[in-house]
Amino acid sequence: MSSHTDDIRQYLKARKELVDSALNRYLPADGPYPPEIYTAMRYSLFAGGKRLRPILCIASAEALGGLMEDVLPAACALEMIHTYSLIHDDLPAMDNDDIRRGVPTNHKIFGEAVAVLAGDALLTDAFRLLTDPVAIRSVEAARVVRIVHEIATAAGAGGMVGGQVVDILSEGRPSDYDTLLYIHSGKTGRMILASLRTGAILADGGEEEMEALSEYGRHIGLAFQISDDILNIEGDPSLLGKVTGSDAARRKVTFPALIGLEESRTMARQSMEAALEGIAGLDGRADPLRWIAHYILERKS
Amino acid sequence: MSSHTDDIRQYLKARKELVDSALNRYLPADGPYPPEIYTAMRYSLFAGGKRLRPILCIASAEALGGLMEDVLPAACALEMIHTYSLIHDDLPAMDNDDIRRGVPTNHKIFGEAVAVLAGDALLTDAFRLLTDPVAIRSVEAARVVRIVHEIATAAGAGGMVGGQVVDILSEGRPSDYDTLLYIHSGKTGRMILASLRTGAILADGGEEEMEALSEYGRHIGLAFQISDDILNIEGDPSLLGKVTGSDAARRKVTFPALIGLEESRTMARQSMEAALEGIAGLDGRADPLRWIAHYILERKS
Repeated sequence: MSSHTDDIRQYLKARKELVDSALNRYLPADGPYPPEIYTAMRYSLFAGGKRLRPILCIASAEALGGLMEDVLPAACALEMIHTYSLIHDDLPAMDNDDIRRGVPTNHKIFGEAVAVLAGDALLTDAFRLLTDPVAIRSVEAARVVRIVHEIATAAGAGGMVGGQVVDILSEGRPSDYDTLLYIHSGKTGRMILASLRTGAILADGGEEEMEALSEYGRHIGLAFQISDDILNIEGDPSLLGKVTGSDAARRKVTFPALIGLEESRTMARQSMEAALEGIAGLDGRADPLRWIAHYILERKS
Repeated sequence: MSSHTDDIRQYLKARKELVDSALNRYLPADGPYPPEIYTAMRYSLFAGGKRLRPILCIASAEALGGLMEDVLPAACALEMIHTYSLIHDDLPAMDNDDIRRGVPTNHKIFGEAVAVLAGDALLTDAFRLLTDPVAIRSVEAARVVRIVHEIATAAGAGGMVGGQVVDILSEGRPSDYDTLLYIHSGKTGRMILASLRTGAILADGGEEEMEALSEYGRHIGLAFQISDDILNIEGDPSLLGKVTGSDAARRKVTFPALIGLEESRTMARQSMEAALEGIAGLDGRADPLRWIAHYILERKS
């Protein structure tokens, strides 16, 4: 594991730079009218995210020999949707967070109205980008339709939004394990899975490869969610860019709260191993996905 | 005109029933988990809208001989996006409206958090519906990609959201005619135009037909916006389902405020005539579009 530390650092850095530069091209600073909305969108989009979802999308495509140019627009669209969900989650009516990734949240800078609209625009323009005739010119139309459906299903009422609804309605109430799994899978797992499947679809993966990457995605999503809960308890606020202990203060349902810290650690590691098992049949081009699985468990932020 | 009153009433009623029944199928009441979000989505979706955008989409397809089954999913998606925009516009941080279509606004019933999420879900699930493999099985993939791009572009930062941003930032400030046109075109015109173009794309319209329906759409959009401003001054609140005079109270920039009531009436009529002129080359199958042009000017709600 530790021997891969340099590989994974270098890989994440290189892919993050590709994503950042593409996002900058798709949503330029000296962009279109009205400037206020683009400023607010870019503020949160470039506030220092890890770009985990776009990188998973790219790594999934690369594992099957896909082309970077085919996958970059979708990778960026996934990050735009992730950023929209953070902006809306931080709103006073929702989690009421003042700080995210070490800087004031969107509504603290631009006000609630513009923050709602910046989220709306990031979500909508993600679908514009996914179907942009120039950006996707070399991708077969049927595959574009499939990824739009994949991503919209994962992000909508039955996916990410559903998870956030149950999370909000469960706050301060006693919750069971099924509810915890639903919330986490909805809020995080579904979009991580969609990122991997989007990459696989764009790389024209066969049924078996799709299933392998989906299996990896389901387990890596769970490992990510559990490790997120653990970081909220014992992470370093200066590395996380946000306060810790907020889940407990809000009496949010979490893995450590329900099954304990030690059991949570074991479960995160088992999920990581199941993720690796899922892609055991893929060749060396899937190594970055293997590094990412370790990284998710060992990350500090 | 008045001789068409029965035709248009019957046409609007029949198409509205088709749209309502399809929406009910796509978002069923005894639907999936979590029920809270679907209840909130359906509350606003079935709060008595005119279904103008889906009907324009259908009428546009019908004018070119398109099939109802090919256009219904997209027509419903357009209404879902329209409904999302109303829910978010009504939020306390935005227009802070308590009543819409004669009933309490979404956040008055479900709270702000769920209202934001119901809007998010309607927007996201519209794109899920647009690409649903069963709903669109007989539509060529390339055309599906085109309509997703058309609709996302019209609804996003450079379209509907952009119009709402400028509207909010302009409130209470002196505004010029260009700003007024931008706000109205963004908030209403762009999605009306996209509805017509979506119908035309799904009916496999040629370049000339696309241009005719776009010309109709641009002018009908303007006529609709101006008549909306006029109704906010002299409409009947019991027919409108909302209070009148709210634009003036908020010092919103409107056509009557900038160019006067009489001049606004003239401009609305001229836009309606220009819309008819735009589709003069289409045959009798475009008659419903002609009726709708008259209806938009003469409507009371």
